[in-house]
Amino acid sequence: MQAVEVFAPASVANLSCGFDVLGLCLEGVGDRMRFTQTEEKGIRIVHTSPSDLPTDPTKNVAGVAAQALLKDYPLSGGICIEIDKGILPGSGIGSSAASAVGAVVGVNALLEKPLAKEDLLPYALAGEAIASQAKHADNIAPALLGGMILVRSVEPMDVLKLPCPKELFVVVLHPQIELKTAEARALLGENVLLKNAIQQWANVGALVHALHTQDDELLAQSLQDVVAEPVRKKLIPGYDPIKASAMDNGALGCGISGAGPSIFALVKGKEKGEQVAKAMANNCTQLGINHKVYLSAINARGAEIINPK
Amino acid sequence: MQAVEVFAPASVANLSCGFDVLGLCLEGVGDRMRFTQTEEKGIRIVHTSPSDLPTDPTKNVAGVAAQALLKDYPLSGGICIEIDKGILPGSGIGSSAASAVGAVVGVNALLEKPLAKEDLLPYALAGEAIASQAKHADNIAPALLGGMILVRSVEPMDVLKLPCPKELFVVVLHPQIELKTAEARALLGENVLLKNAIQQWANVGALVHALHTQDDELLAQSLQDVVAEPVRKKLIPGYDPIKASAMDNGALGCGISGAGPSIFALVKGKEKGEQVAKAMANNCTQLGINHKVYLSAINARGAEIINPK
Repeated sequence: MQAVEVFAPASVANLSCGFDVLGLCLEGVGDRMRFTQTEEKGIRIVHTSPSDLPTDPTKNVAGVAAQALLKDYPLSGGICIEIDKGILPGSGIGSSAASAVGAVVGVNALLEKPLAKEDLLPYALAGEAIASQAKHADNIAPALLGGMILVRSVEPMDVLKLPCPKELFVVVLHPQIELKTAEARALLGENVLLKNAIQQWANVGALVHALHTQDDELLAQSLQDVVAEPVRKKLIPGYDPIKASAMDNGALGCGISGAGPSIFALVKGKEKGEQVAKAMANNCTQLGINHKVYLSAINARGAEIINPK
Repeated sequence: MQAVEVFAPASVANLSCGFDVLGLCLEGVGDRMRFTQTEEKGIRIVHTSPSDLPTDPTKNVAGVAAQALLKDYPLSGGICIEIDKGILPGSGIGSSAASAVGAVVGVNALLEKPLAKEDLLPYALAGEAIASQAKHADNIAPALLGGMILVRSVEPMDVLKLPCPKELFVVVLHPQIELKTAEARALLGENVLLKNAIQQWANVGALVHALHTQDDELLAQSLQDVVAEPVRKKLIPGYDPIKASAMDNGALGCGISGAGPSIFALVKGKEKGEQVAKAMANNCTQLGINHKVYLSAINARGAEIINPK
């Protein structure tokens, strides 16, 4: 029986002005998943690290994504998926997206004629949708394809890989508080002020222009969120001082990662990244909030096979 | 006494997804304005073609823009501004912006130390604001600077010149009906659906990416407006069939120019431009609507002195 092992990276979605449409892929933080073909039909989920996530494949994100792909491209037997979660669910760095993306990459590798990575997106989305209760692809697209991604459309799926500044680093600070994506989404309501929406789309356009022209000053100016951040930051204790510590130490921008509670900062250069990470973590400590902090380059590759069949 | 003559071009604002932030400058259509220094203090406005526009410089867009600039950079005497309107007010192709931009370019040329063009934007905005009752710069910025412009911010003013596809032509069809910008704006209301806003900012990002990567297919896909067009098109009789005739004849995109009633279409190549212009005009004729139609390249220069002092 064949087996493959996959690394499925964490990701930062809702990148400032790019609510629901802009995300990037992290390096080194993610899930490890092992896929083994079984004679027995069906999908079996096994957690190899402590986890509260379901093992029922119709309720597990990885199971649903895998089944969606297998429905269109069947295998003769079944698959056992062993999951070693490196991303804490509900942290805001794409835990469910990593599971969904890892599942389709793993299953795909076991197919006789594997699909191109881009063609796996709709199957990963099917898995992600059961966790986030909304069809957004700004975690799964960067987790699958790597880099910085603009999701132009989900139905039909159309994602664009943006040019990435050299030496761009991401600091992710994860305050150890629980926050449900669905709750954070409900806070937003169905409407947004037109004047805020206009500011947001002006900044999205400027951000894409800044990436193409390698204009760091413009990039920093465009990394603003006037739609989600003002309402969602209330769910994250200490958000304002933590963000201030990042900006005071030279971050280009800082915002809520996904639906939170993680906070990301974009920084030019590893040294400055370490400085910003330290400042954010110190600030969190002073506020008495337990936390984890990561410093990551942009992962240009996305999910990948780390142990070929 | 010194005198200069200025050509102030028409412009297309609210470019599809880029409501209030994206505009482009037209070639050949515009106002001619002549500025003569006078011993007598103050600004005098003279219309050299039939016009219902005010001649009171505190109520005339050109007068207000000129006065705003002269307040910061005074001249010893006064100025007589002769205006030959080539753009019909209320047509949706930046009539007031042309007057405002022409005024600041003309007055600037008479200053001992003229300002850089970019620095004239806030003064032109002061003039434009009395006509449109809203501070948007997606007509004045392209009319002044030329090309395709993204307005990232109005206060403080920050505009970005986007790369322009080669061989891009603009068809403008002006149905001869009157429509007030303020009325069209009121139709929009203060709120927009979040899901529509998301789609809009995804398309603005994609449009900027398409311009940088010279991807005409993506450009066409991103030229969508789900915010203003659906409500404003009701003010323009025959909008849907006229747009359909443009798209059926190979336009990349088609939308409401400014607040309407003019309809623009973006087209690759002059020949196709002529075909689209003809189809839109024929459609308008069949509907019994009087109209004018223009075919224009993108004017990369913006407002300019045509008769040096």
